[in-house]
Amino acid sequence: MTERLEAQLAFLREADRLKTVLRASRLIDDSRHENSAEHSWHIMLYALVLADQAGPDINIDRVLKMLLLHDLVEIDAGDSPIHGNVDHAAMAIKEAAAADRLFGLLPQDQCDAYRALWDEFESAASPDAQFAKAIDRFQPPIANLATGGGTWRGYAVTLEQMDQRVGQPVSRGAPGLWQWLRPQLQKFFARI
Amino acid sequence: MTERLEAQLAFLREADRLKTVLRASRLIDDSRHENSAEHSWHIMLYALVLADQAGPDINIDRVLKMLLLHDLVEIDAGDSPIHGNVDHAAMAIKEAAAADRLFGLLPQDQCDAYRALWDEFESAASPDAQFAKAIDRFQPPIANLATGGGTWRGYAVTLEQMDQRVGQPVSRGAPGLWQWLRPQLQKFFARI
Repeated sequence: MTERLEAQLAFLREADRLKTVLRASRLIDDSRHENSAEHSWHIMLYALVLADQAGPDINIDRVLKMLLLHDLVEIDAGDSPIHGNVDHAAMAIKEAAAADRLFGLLPQDQCDAYRALWDEFESAASPDAQFAKAIDRFQPPIANLATGGGTWRGYAVTLEQMDQRVGQPVSRGAPGLWQWLRPQLQKFFARI
Repeated sequence: MTERLEAQLAFLREADRLKTVLRASRLIDDSRHENSAEHSWHIMLYALVLADQAGPDINIDRVLKMLLLHDLVEIDAGDSPIHGNVDHAAMAIKEAAAADRLFGLLPQDQCDAYRALWDEFESAASPDAQFAKAIDRFQPPIANLATGGGTWRGYAVTLEQMDQRVGQPVSRGAPGLWQWLRPQLQKFFARI
């Protein structure tokens, strides 16, 4: 038992580092960049509150666990901004290595279970993962709309990019949210 | 539907402010204070990983939801450090008012459900709430032990205080964790 607990605590201590991984996005009060730990908390709250936007075959408890774990790999691999120029193949290799190392700190049964959940999220391989991905992409635009553009300005984002990088995953996993968001984006991008 | 979604988004935007509520505790790398949003994420991870420390009648999915919501009231009421001199009666009144305002932003059904879950947590009124409280109290000592004392030094904390403020809730909700933690604390406090 003690050996199992020591492994679990080693993992939980290491997870503290996610609080120092900064994202491109900023807090709504514009005071600083958002980190990936607090972002993970916030999108779990989004998923819980917006669960009625999910399809009937969604298990929200699995979605919450996916979102709880989904960014841990950034401790080693860093965050890749959605509107940045990212080499996705190279990033996938870095993130898989990070998942090996981080989940590998845990007892084998938990390592296997969390890795499977993370793989499911990454590959959007199920309705649960598709809803989780939709929520992950839906939160940053809400902050950007609330702050008059936020990171969209720095990255010179266009409505076409939003349709592709946000619209595709959000409309697949939570079509009602995209139906609400698209006209807001249209209005915003028409003004800049 | 749109009215419901607008209310949900108003709540989710307001929740962003939990990222700016600072706790007494510091990150393990000692770079800065921890905020209540990233703390909430971290203790959800603790609860998931350490679920085998909970009694057999615990529903871990309910525990995770409790922890997701438990600190939101701090947006209005602020954080009360466990080792600080806090007027607990006054704080309870402030937190109840905060719960009224914040959950009141949501559609009525969600307001009622989340408020009930928060009340259950606050009053430690069930095995789920007792496990959630145990986890909430267990995480800061892990960080303090990892950083050679952390906030214990600033607050001149004693082992007797730890037994009362940490030992009671942790041993009630997760006795195995207290059994592991107590000797570590004893060793630490014998040295200072």
